[in-house]
Amino acid sequence: MQVLILALEFDVRFIAHSLLSLGAAALISLFLASQHVSADESVLNSGDTQALHSLKAQALNSDLSYEILESLTTEVGARLAGTPADQKAIQWAVQKMKDLGFNKVWTEDVEIPAWDRGTLDVKISDPYQHTLTGLTLGGSVGTKGRALNAEVVEFVDLTALQAAEPGSIDGKIAYISNRMVRHIEGRGYGVAVPARGAGASIAASKGAKALIIRSIGTGDHRFAHTGGIKYADEVARIPAIAISNPDADLLSRVLTRGKTSVTLSSTAKRHDDKVRTTANVIGEITGSQAPDEIVAIGAHLDSWDVGTGAMDDGLGVAITMAAAAMIGQSEIAPKRTIRVILYGAEEIGFYGTKQYMIDHANSVDQHMIGAEWDFGLGRIFELRPGVGEQSLAAIQVLGRHLLDLGVLMGKGNDAQAQSDMSLLSKAGMPAVNFMPDGSRYFDYHHTENDTLDKIDPDDLKQNTAVYTVFAWFAAQSGVDFRR
Amino acid sequence: MQVLILALEFDVRFIAHSLLSLGAAALISLFLASQHVSADESVLNSGDTQALHSLKAQALNSDLSYEILESLTTEVGARLAGTPADQKAIQWAVQKMKDLGFNKVWTEDVEIPAWDRGTLDVKISDPYQHTLTGLTLGGSVGTKGRALNAEVVEFVDLTALQAAEPGSIDGKIAYISNRMVRHIEGRGYGVAVPARGAGASIAASKGAKALIIRSIGTGDHRFAHTGGIKYADEVARIPAIAISNPDADLLSRVLTRGKTSVTLSSTAKRHDDKVRTTANVIGEITGSQAPDEIVAIGAHLDSWDVGTGAMDDGLGVAITMAAAAMIGQSEIAPKRTIRVILYGAEEIGFYGTKQYMIDHANSVDQHMIGAEWDFGLGRIFELRPGVGEQSLAAIQVLGRHLLDLGVLMGKGNDAQAQSDMSLLSKAGMPAVNFMPDGSRYFDYHHTENDTLDKIDPDDLKQNTAVYTVFAWFAAQSGVDFRR
Repeated sequence: MQVLILALEFDVRFIAHSLLSLGAAALISLFLASQHVSADESVLNSGDTQALHSLKAQALNSDLSYEILESLTTEVGARLAGTPADQKAIQWAVQKMKDLGFNKVWTEDVEIPAWDRGTLDVKISDPYQHTLTGLTLGGSVGTKGRALNAEVVEFVDLTALQAAEPGSIDGKIAYISNRMVRHIEGRGYGVAVPARGAGASIAASKGAKALIIRSIGTGDHRFAHTGGIKYADEVARIPAIAISNPDADLLSRVLTRGKTSVTLSSTAKRHDDKVRTTANVIGEITGSQAPDEIVAIGAHLDSWDVGTGAMDDGLGVAITMAAAAMIGQSEIAPKRTIRVILYGAEEIGFYGTKQYMIDHANSVDQHMIGAEWDFGLGRIFELRPGVGEQSLAAIQVLGRHLLDLGVLMGKGNDAQAQSDMSLLSKAGMPAVNFMPDGSRYFDYHHTENDTLDKIDPDDLKQNTAVYTVFAWFAAQSGVDFRR
Repeated sequence: MQVLILALEFDVRFIAHSLLSLGAAALISLFLASQHVSADESVLNSGDTQALHSLKAQALNSDLSYEILESLTTEVGARLAGTPADQKAIQWAVQKMKDLGFNKVWTEDVEIPAWDRGTLDVKISDPYQHTLTGLTLGGSVGTKGRALNAEVVEFVDLTALQAAEPGSIDGKIAYISNRMVRHIEGRGYGVAVPARGAGASIAASKGAKALIIRSIGTGDHRFAHTGGIKYADEVARIPAIAISNPDADLLSRVLTRGKTSVTLSSTAKRHDDKVRTTANVIGEITGSQAPDEIVAIGAHLDSWDVGTGAMDDGLGVAITMAAAAMIGQSEIAPKRTIRVILYGAEEIGFYGTKQYMIDHANSVDQHMIGAEWDFGLGRIFELRPGVGEQSLAAIQVLGRHLLDLGVLMGKGNDAQAQSDMSLLSKAGMPAVNFMPDGSRYFDYHHTENDTLDKIDPDDLKQNTAVYTVFAWFAAQSGVDFRR
């Protein structure tokens, strides 16, 4: 016991991993069982605590979230917002939540701009000839089907491109070769991704007629990573593509030998005049005592068109649906309403969540607390709160209920909800964030290779148990989390 | 010391790995240095032994094989036999061997049939819609650009397909879902690959109008594995394609839900009337005393068209070229000639080696011993001989010179040379086989993902040192290896 208590004062994450890997989870559970009952009394009574333990055990032994994910990836698969596959995903989600016994299920329409990926051919044409593996980036214009051939100029990162003199790469192709760094919290993404989002317009402002980026991803497999771009106003819109990391290695090696040209041809097309429709899909387990008080858990339903969206964000859909369903089917219906929000059109620009903020502008304060899952695959190792100070003691109680799942409390109290739900967070909703081990996520993110086989069913059970415990605790305890 | 000697009586491979992982290589070297000089005297004199040690140390510290591989994959890349890229590879190989100081370099033409992969679109069309990742198999006919849509019937392996009644799958698509097993010696390949080679004609004989196979590969990434097929005479030639392993998982999951249809469209084309030309490229380090006695080391120069052929078989090209070059540049030019044979057109049906057997029919007995490398990436753990009994003692001496590289003697004396060189082996050439750890090779084999970044430079140094030691030993010792 002393070892444990001492350890908590040091690097909690390291210790949690170490203890788990030593098979000490059972020991921690025993310790907690002996310590917690009295500590929890002010937040959950002993009956509730017993019910929570029971629900946690059920979640840890249930295949429900895996079954939901298998169903989504098998019966729907890739579901780019606004496409027929996206419409199927919406129907699938409505039906699945009804089948799982949600008390209310509905959709809320979202209008989105239209974009088609088309096809891409990209080749090194001189001094050697290589067919490259690439993808046009989301929202990019194409080459109108014409082959665009030009010399390539390499920049080691976006800052180097920004430093180039205007006109210095007139008529050339800018190539940003920055390499995303692997990190347990996925923090390499934030460092590398501006090259994708902002690179095209900066390249255009220097005179480039196309942008190539090294994929924003940590994998060494030959998949290009797609993702959205944003054109600046009043700058020419040039085609922007990502090539796979092995192909980026190759292009950089060829460039070390001298002047290098690339030919690319993309049939991608923005339809700025056309609007497509998608939807947010919402389901609720109605609260028994405070139905207007909402505990929100969510994910996004859409995916990119290249993989089957198993981890981005099928995993979030499966975890949140399963957590709510198991609570709905449990003996004690919790006091508050649990709302599962499956946002539409996240990938192409957060359109679903923006529409949600409009549709629910008058009820933001009914969202008592929220948590999204849109951060890949892996075991959750940390809980990060962003709640009113008066509720931190209750969050500590929640944390103790998650400790035997390998989850420790993070430092600070400034977390915002992830992804779509960050807008609710900014509008004042209290939130918690659950951090999974994101070391491997960006090997697969936004690639063809985002498929069901990559998901570890045991990790998924842990993920689901964490969300189940959180949602039930937040709904049943009645704690005021507001700041 | 006793531990080592005892250990050799048990599982040598396990012990070799364990010792190396314990950092015991240095200890083994010391042991050998103290034991070997006298044992080797009858095979190599002490001056030769010193020269061999020196060459081995040089090979272990040299980047030459990596530089050759980097050059081939960067300046040539994919090189399907008979294509312009293959012609570039031939020119590259000739020039590289000249630059490396080979005494003689020449090419020998090889005529091959023409086949073009074209494009493939393959989709699950009913009851769900999924775009699949697939490749038309080498030598397969296409669908003449027309979409072929049919119900899919799954067979768990080729034996199950063979057992089907003729006519029982009339007009349907046969789908063989056998899963290749991972194995250190790659033995899962031999079990699984008949589905690829023979599946199409067996499926056709049962009435199928196309064949789909689960890729013959161990990877869980979304790459289809190509490879050659062989049509039987007097059976309809039907299109044969491989889908990636995650896509095979998906297709099998859809099939568990009921009747499933697939649409495929392939523009692959056999040109049975056309002949293309490629070449074997041969280079020699001429022997100082017995120039007509040949120690043959080899690999194949061609690759499939989808990856850059870094491991299949650029690795073999790099290892054998570098080994011969380092020997050629060493102080003691060995007595026999070292011949590097870079075969053409291995992948599409062993055309280069067949031509070599014709061209060199009268000099097979000049090939004193041979070793090919066409088995992927990884450290070599075992030497397997296939030589005359009288030379086994000398092979043991060779083995002792390889022990500090982590290579132990295999059991038996019936090895045949790998791949192309198996034809020389069958014609009577003595051979040795070096077995690398093939656990990972079939993750990449015949895919787009066969690229330079997968190669571990340290493993490549070990591989090169083994071939260097072998070739120098066989050329300098003058041992008669013949059976």
